[in-house]
Amino acid sequence: MNEFDVIKHFFQCRESIRSDVIVGSGDDCALLKIPEGNVLAVSTDTLISDVHFPADWDGYDTASKALACALSDLAAMAAQPAWFVCALTLPDINLHWLQDFANGLFDFAKPFELDLVGGDLTCGKSLSITITVHGFVPPTLALRRDAAKVGETVYVSGKLGAPSFAKYRHIPYPQINLGLALRGKSYCAIDISDGLAADLSHILKASHVGAHIDLASLPIIKELNNNYEIALTGGDDYQLCFTAPPGLVIDGHDVTSIGTIESELGLRLYAPDGALVELKKKGYQHF
Amino acid sequence: MNEFDVIKHFFQCRESIRSDVIVGSGDDCALLKIPEGNVLAVSTDTLISDVHFPADWDGYDTASKALACALSDLAAMAAQPAWFVCALTLPDINLHWLQDFANGLFDFAKPFELDLVGGDLTCGKSLSITITVHGFVPPTLALRRDAAKVGETVYVSGKLGAPSFAKYRHIPYPQINLGLALRGKSYCAIDISDGLAADLSHILKASHVGAHIDLASLPIIKELNNNYEIALTGGDDYQLCFTAPPGLVIDGHDVTSIGTIESELGLRLYAPDGALVELKKKGYQHF
Repeated sequence: MNEFDVIKHFFQCRESIRSDVIVGSGDDCALLKIPEGNVLAVSTDTLISDVHFPADWDGYDTASKALACALSDLAAMAAQPAWFVCALTLPDINLHWLQDFANGLFDFAKPFELDLVGGDLTCGKSLSITITVHGFVPPTLALRRDAAKVGETVYVSGKLGAPSFAKYRHIPYPQINLGLALRGKSYCAIDISDGLAADLSHILKASHVGAHIDLASLPIIKELNNNYEIALTGGDDYQLCFTAPPGLVIDGHDVTSIGTIESELGLRLYAPDGALVELKKKGYQHF
Repeated sequence: MNEFDVIKHFFQCRESIRSDVIVGSGDDCALLKIPEGNVLAVSTDTLISDVHFPADWDGYDTASKALACALSDLAAMAAQPAWFVCALTLPDINLHWLQDFANGLFDFAKPFELDLVGGDLTCGKSLSITITVHGFVPPTLALRRDAAKVGETVYVSGKLGAPSFAKYRHIPYPQINLGLALRGKSYCAIDISDGLAADLSHILKASHVGAHIDLASLPIIKELNNNYEIALTGGDDYQLCFTAPPGLVIDGHDVTSIGTIESELGLRLYAPDGALVELKKKGYQHF
């Protein structure tokens, strides 16, 4: 099989599941229709073998994780997922791996009503996947990093630490439904990819504010025995951290208030005994 | 410099040049506004060191070629360029190369009014660049691969063979202005990346038609001494091949009629003496 056969056999064989795809895979560009009153949300993410996932993962899990990470960025903007393109670099053509990869990609995409609309297949020394994901959101309802306000509460969804506990044999679940449920209730969010401390710091810098966090309130998986250092810096959680007025409840979602936005710049972490805590490590660093 | 410093220093330091960028680099997603009456055009392309460009190229040329290849896909749809995201995988942080790369990226993008609105920076064994480019076009004016009609003339822009002659030390110029000038005059085009024979065959298959091509009429650079085999299969030309009624003239653009769309399927190449020519090689193959 050459490049074109592979693309046709594994990636262009599925019917489009969306009516807003005017031209999908197989032309020079995809042509896509954004619903009125919405703007396009775009994010791109690369996953590299042995950096972001173990080289011995099968194609199915690899595709799932790549798509999960990309979708998480849409969740963090309260965007409705719609389309993605996938640039795949392979050291060789392994038909079994490719079939698994394609199955993983389409299976993971389907419940999010996400359509594959294009891609690129190249030959390179190591396996890598770059997914560019597209969604849409009414512009005034998007969750931005620069919108945290003094006096708001800081919330985190789900539990922290599962990926650190599982090392990186873990496929995150993107918080798309929570992102959509936050429309009109929150205006500021980030997804936790590099660790809560690092990612919340991005919000604080972009919003020119600070935060007071109570470590006792962090929702940590019980296997970590309250090791907040790992929960704060482990990364790969792909939960959402967001700000909103105190007392927020989102039906059907597990969200925990962990602190308060303050005018004094910087991130201040308080132990249960009231002591200010310094982290040894700030979060995941790629270089 | 860590990942975030590099992104901030080299890629987020420039002012946006477009008013339709609501949120650019630095948030989870970019938020972008498509003008009314238009649809989004999206394409993604990966370039790998020592596959698509020589490893000893400087950052400036590398960035220029990556963006040129991506833009060429917008040209082939008659789309107006607007925004791009860039996923960069580097074996290490070389500040000099990065400065060159960033300069190349912004310099090449500027005349096309193309804005960098996001990206990803990862560490991997070999240098690779995946650019996803976004533009827009009124849907009825887009140039598609599946729209060739029997009786139309086949045209090619510019001259073929320059990249093959220069080996791969060549930065193509994307035919954006020609694509825009073709709106309403042609409805079917492709950009020539894998060689005219292979790329025209994509049009023929998608449109369920065939073509008769007169090799004597091919616009070949004179350095190739009428070597039509190289001109047809060399690839990397990034000129446009399109179909339209006979006698088309596009002011300010060099386009050559090279043959005719026919109902009999397949690509038929005729030598000046009237003999049917078989190509030894069909075009660039990645695997």
